[in-house]
Amino acid sequence: MGVIVEVENVDEDDAVLIPPSNFSMVEDCIYRSSLPQPSNFPFLQTLNLRSIIYLCPEPYPEENLEFLKSQNIRLFQFGIEGKTEVSLPVLKDSIMEALKVLIDVRNHPILIHCKRGKHRTGSLVGCFRKLQNWCLSSVFEEYQRFAGVKSRTTDLTFIEMFDVLSLRQCLYSIIYQYQGASKKRRLMYQDENLQKPRLTSF
Amino acid sequence: MGVIVEVENVDEDDAVLIPPSNFSMVEDCIYRSSLPQPSNFPFLQTLNLRSIIYLCPEPYPEENLEFLKSQNIRLFQFGIEGKTEVSLPVLKDSIMEALKVLIDVRNHPILIHCKRGKHRTGSLVGCFRKLQNWCLSSVFEEYQRFAGVKSRTTDLTFIEMFDVLSLRQCLYSIIYQYQGASKKRRLMYQDENLQKPRLTSF
Repeated sequence: MGVIVEVENVDEDDAVLIPPSNFSMVEDCIYRSSLPQPSNFPFLQTLNLRSIIYLCPEPYPEENLEFLKSQNIRLFQFGIEGKTEVSLPVLKDSIMEALKVLIDVRNHPILIHCKRGKHRTGSLVGCFRKLQNWCLSSVFEEYQRFAGVKSRTTDLTFIEMFDVLSLRQCLYSIIYQYQGASKKRRLMYQDENLQKPRLTSF
Repeated sequence: MGVIVEVENVDEDDAVLIPPSNFSMVEDCIYRSSLPQPSNFPFLQTLNLRSIIYLCPEPYPEENLEFLKSQNIRLFQFGIEGKTEVSLPVLKDSIMEALKVLIDVRNHPILIHCKRGKHRTGSLVGCFRKLQNWCLSSVFEEYQRFAGVKSRTTDLTFIEMFDVLSLRQCLYSIIYQYQGASKKRRLMYQDENLQKPRLTSF
């Protein structure tokens, strides 16, 4: 009988994990993906998420909401239409608000997703990379890696034109702190004088 | 004068960072990319690397060697030919040895790279994902995201056939340890009964 128990334990350890499509790590404690399906929930549990940024205007799927509740994950929703003719000022505002949530380490570990993890997620990550002072060609390369043949010039132009200066105040309040022997860098706030992010509770 | 100094500091903070092409985070403290160019060195410094896994048989470029020396980064070289007709047993051995170095947290933070960060790096990351119990379709999706139109069926078959069972002993010695309030997961060794990795010193 002892052998059977052992075999069962091995099976449990061997459970195959299914990350959402277009899943990737963006930075320490920041992830991106497409809309997670229930089959992806066991994988998501391994990330120990504290928050999710959801970039679609559609209501969050009921089963996903239940998963979030069970895991005590906070949902931040910024409804951006999935078409190319999004009003630019509205898009700018949404991305700016989402960025504020994204760089707030109190919300980490955090997952960004829209529907396919290409355009809206790619735009937010692109603006985040500008905040990190990545050169534009590297930002574009990363965007295109996820968007593939669906890459949109409007998104690239938006990222290029996006003014991170207005977020400088936030940027200057962030320091890279080295943690002892592991030399691990982490985004940390030097002060907490930040605007409260908009929270969509459920 | 004080103002000038301040402006200079701002300039320094604003220095544009150029990640190597095909750069991405794989896991906490594990990165992948193409062969870094000198223009990428300032970016690499922000990663606080402890080691690099280099998967080509060609000697490491002199300027890269000097950068590694200056940053006290250890180089592990596993020479895999960049052609499709690599001897399978040799490839298996190299990937297995590279995996042992990769999952050893004493080598983290670590960067994996070959020349373009597509085939050899993609194969190693693919085998690492199998160790992490990712389903094969997700492993393939990630491989293809980096290889793009250069995707090779031989690599995908290699990843599929790669036997991670022989690394199970290592796998079972790894635990996910939660670090206090941050709930941060990290790869940690439960014991250190591991074969010493082959080290290419310079």
